[in-house]
Amino acid sequence: MKKAILIIQCPDQKGIVAEVSRFLYSYEGNILEVDQHVDEEMGMFFMRAAWELDSFSLQKDEIADRFRLEVGDRFKMDFKLHFNFPKPRMAIFVSKLSHCLFDILGRHHAGQLDLEIPLVVSNHQNLKSIVEAFGIPFHHVAISAENKASAEERQLDLMKSHQIDFVVLARYMQILSADFIKHFPNRIINIHHSFLPAFVGARPYHAAYEKGVKIIGATAHYVTEELDAGPIIEQEVARVRHHNTVSELVQIGQDVEKMVLSKAIKYHLDRKVMPIRNKTVIFY
Amino acid sequence: MKKAILIIQCPDQKGIVAEVSRFLYSYEGNILEVDQHVDEEMGMFFMRAAWELDSFSLQKDEIADRFRLEVGDRFKMDFKLHFNFPKPRMAIFVSKLSHCLFDILGRHHAGQLDLEIPLVVSNHQNLKSIVEAFGIPFHHVAISAENKASAEERQLDLMKSHQIDFVVLARYMQILSADFIKHFPNRIINIHHSFLPAFVGARPYHAAYEKGVKIIGATAHYVTEELDAGPIIEQEVARVRHHNTVSELVQIGQDVEKMVLSKAIKYHLDRKVMPIRNKTVIFY
Amino acid sequence: MKKAILIIQCPDQKGIVAEVSRFLYSYEGNILEVDQHVDEEMGMFFMRAAWELDSFSLQKDEIADRFRLEVGDRFKMDFKLHFNFPKPRMAIFVSKLSHCLFDILGRHHAGQLDLEIPLVVSNHQNLKSIVEAFGIPFHHVAISAENKASAEERQLDLMKSHQIDFVVLARYMQILSADFIKHFPNRIINIHHSFLPAFVGARPYHAAYEKGVKIIGATAHYVTEELDAGPIIEQEVARVRHHNTVSELVQIGQDVEKMVLSKAIKYHLDRKVMPIRNKTVIFY
Amino acid sequence: MKKAILIIQCPDQKGIVAEVSRFLYSYEGNILEVDQHVDEEMGMFFMRAAWELDSFSLQKDEIADRFRLEVGDRFKMDFKLHFNFPKPRMAIFVSKLSHCLFDILGRHHAGQLDLEIPLVVSNHQNLKSIVEAFGIPFHHVAISAENKASAEERQLDLMKSHQIDFVVLARYMQILSADFIKHFPNRIINIHHSFLPAFVGARPYHAAYEKGVKIIGATAHYVTEELDAGPIIEQEVARVRHHNTVSELVQIGQDVEKMVLSKAIKYHLDRKVMPIRNKTVIFY
Repeated sequence: MKKAILIIQCPDQKGIVAEVSRFLYSYEGNILEVDQHVDEEMGMFFMRAAWELDSFSLQKDEIADRFRLEVGDRFKMDFKLHFNFPKPRMAIFVSKLSHCLFDILGRHHAGQLDLEIPLVVSNHQNLKSIVEAFGIPFHHVAISAENKASAEERQLDLMKSHQIDFVVLARYMQILSADFIKHFPNRIINIHHSFLPAFVGARPYHAAYEKGVKIIGATAHYVTEELDAGPIIEQEVARVRHHNTVSELVQIGQDVEKMVLSKAIKYHLDRKVMPIRNKTVIFY
Repeated sequence: MKKAILIIQCPDQKGIVAEVSRFLYSYEGNILEVDQHVDEEMGMFFMRAAWELDSFSLQKDEIADRFRLEVGDRFKMDFKLHFNFPKPRMAIFVSKLSHCLFDILGRHHAGQLDLEIPLVVSNHQNLKSIVEAFGIPFHHVAISAENKASAEERQLDLMKSHQIDFVVLARYMQILSADFIKHFPNRIINIHHSFLPAFVGARPYHAAYEKGVKIIGATAHYVTEELDAGPIIEQEVARVRHHNTVSELVQIGQDVEKMVLSKAIKYHLDRKVMPIRNKTVIFY
Repeated sequence: MKKAILIIQCPDQKGIVAEVSRFLYSYEGNILEVDQHVDEEMGMFFMRAAWELDSFSLQKDEIADRFRLEVGDRFKMDFKLHFNFPKPRMAIFVSKLSHCLFDILGRHHAGQLDLEIPLVVSNHQNLKSIVEAFGIPFHHVAISAENKASAEERQLDLMKSHQIDFVVLARYMQILSADFIKHFPNRIINIHHSFLPAFVGARPYHAAYEKGVKIIGATAHYVTEELDAGPIIEQEVARVRHHNTVSELVQIGQDVEKMVLSKAIKYHLDRKVMPIRNKTVIFY
Repeated sequence: MKKAILIIQCPDQKGIVAEVSRFLYSYEGNILEVDQHVDEEMGMFFMRAAWELDSFSLQKDEIADRFRLEVGDRFKMDFKLHFNFPKPRMAIFVSKLSHCLFDILGRHHAGQLDLEIPLVVSNHQNLKSIVEAFGIPFHHVAISAENKASAEERQLDLMKSHQIDFVVLARYMQILSADFIKHFPNRIINIHHSFLPAFVGARPYHAAYEKGVKIIGATAHYVTEELDAGPIIEQEVARVRHHNTVSELVQIGQDVEKMVLSKAIKYHLDRKVMPIRNKTVIFY
């Protein structure tokens, strides 16, 4: 089903839901989902509405202008209009670890993810043949301390030439430069292998082991310049025990990582995530 | 804050959200929460809207009529209007087991439950002094095979004289008659000590033990004539192991029971539960 | 590390742990794990002990006899001795759905499963190329109402010629005959897509939807002649809501299925599961 | 049932399990539970064994000496011998918040906790009448910046005169002095209202709200001089959403707090917790 998704934020005031739903109704829109949220502290209103396009009496490319004119300007709305076609194009960056990558490829193969994966980029070769068996092109871009800038340039070229909408770091293990991040604001999803804000940075499973926590976790978040500090999209945890070694924590944790990352991709894909300052509203 | 809550169900069609929100806006209603749900199979639309009453320009007792006139009739709506004042009046029925009762009383004492508890009814005396220490009147109504009908009459009198809105069976262990149930349609909440529909009826922890399940659960549901088969409001589970005895299952399960029942009470109290046929829509 | 695993069951009596550990110590065994369980009702004792073989002063093929002589007979023990080499050989049976299969293949590829997968058997062709990309031979055995007996014969031949130790039904969707099952007593692991004993049989997600449960689940169990009634190895659940369609339940449930099945395989592989009557002791 | 519990730690070496179980067997001990753990890094062995005393041929007060002589000295064991009688004596410290306190009192009243609660100490009066309805003496010890030292002295006198074995801080909200803590090494259990090590210190729910985490938690730990840094006994989490206010986080979190604290008390009571450096081994 072809659908449109409208994401709105504006100063909170009365009548917004009424006006937005009146607009959609006046053009024969059949609303599929509506969610709203008011942040009392900020005095801001947030809304997500999805509706069927087939029966809608406005053309796809008229909607934004008409909405701005009839509703948006009046309420000083900052809004974005999305469609579920053409399908969003997602690049996956990966290093050697396969668990998150395979989980995503499996879901895509089973038709669970309504998106294109034009390429997988890796600084290693080990996952090439399986990625290709899933029908996805695999690009090897070696990274070293010396070539980092030129490697990123190469990666950005790939993103551009494949018209990538958003990037998923499926345990990529490399820190992206501020410059790279600027090209994809709130459009790079990383999976960090701890329950943030606990255990920021490298080797979180070792840190969890040292601390003796009884639960470990994983966090999917948008990448910002500050390491592991971007808006959190999703988190999940798993129970561990005193007898679990670090490598058992790693294995238990990988199951959590892949589930959390796939869920975050799904939310992002369905336009259910609104990053606001350093947090997210998730309309699920 | 004084608020009104409108619960709507009607045949699905375009424009409902627009009209309901227009109505509220036209009388200066500040919407606090709106949720809707479409059941495609039934072709039915369900909605819950909550708004502040203080700034609303209609009087409390005008709202229903005006809404019917302006919106309800047109969409063939079946709707109910609730207010969070006066506070709903809840009776608790209990036998000997205290865990659910104490959990509810503790929350009420801490101000978490915005309701009155005019009385606790029990067929045993053992919990009387603690209930009274919480400031709640305790009524002992003995039940036996012989006096069941007259005991229920006595209970119904108590419900009536205390103007009880809904009843919570906090592990009451007695089966209510169809007649009693008719007085409180979808207004009696029971906690069943299994993950329904598994282990209906008596001694579910024994049955779970025999079956060797790895997870046990509890289910809060509205009471209907058919035993343990009413609309499910909430469920939760806990992990068990082969070495757990039946009495350990009971203890583990009681923690689940009390959390599930208290959550169900909260949903019911906030008018977030819509029973539809034998299921529930929960607008949380 | 080469290790031996001893699984014991016998009538409960004093001194068993002392004698078993004395036996292992007397031959220089370095115990890695010991777990025991007493079933009071049955009056039975169960034990699992794992130890390093490298430093053990008995040869691999002497251990069983010597143990029987020195300890086993005296306590009327029913015991089994396992080694983690050569690696157990597991066959995977699958139909069209890929989620469980890919999860297992991904883990195997990452080195998480210390076993051989000599083949995948399917009654469909659609997963062939990806299975082969993982380096696993794929055998297509078509099944129809007419050829069922001969197809099972073919499957049994494959099991025999590949020296299969145990079989995993990764959403295989076909019911195995009693005869097939007899060849692998407590060595066929099935994943059922419900929280057993709720929703036995076909279309459990539809049944869960109809019932309006708030939690769905999956159950890994050994296959016995009675459908979906064999000893439960592992179960897990996920929360669902009123707005989830059957196909969303399916998708949410598939995540649970794959995690539960992989966990069950791990327990079986590590010889941590003792089926006892129609239940299991799991020494994790 | 009268039982003895032996807690052992010593350098790891072969034969420990054999010798300990031989010792128990030689005096007719019927072992109820045995658990062991090896910390490879530290090269240390840990063990917990529980057995019935009724049939044991050593007197209660002979056991420790005999064990040291026959087993302990040889393996350089650091061991402790506990009995489940007389019942351990637990003091509860509380401020104004009642949820943890009532949860503990409810369990104790239901016979779930095999211990004495000789007193509840509070710096407020508000919970006095309900505590007393549960049959537990309530002591008010006012705390101010000025009288802190003398108040602690008063508290220590109460602990002494009531022969308190361990102290539970049920959201006590006051920081105990190093001197007080020294009287109860690894015998003061605190509940911290966050998932440690995230959100140490005051107002963790506010910090969680600011950070936009999707899951909140609670941590029960032994109190050491460093704030919120003692050995973790138990942790649990709950899911939260963007629309939850701080006060909703508080309410959701309180449910987690009370469950976690009660579980930690149970582990401590059953002598299942071994604090080792800054971590715990939990033999459950």
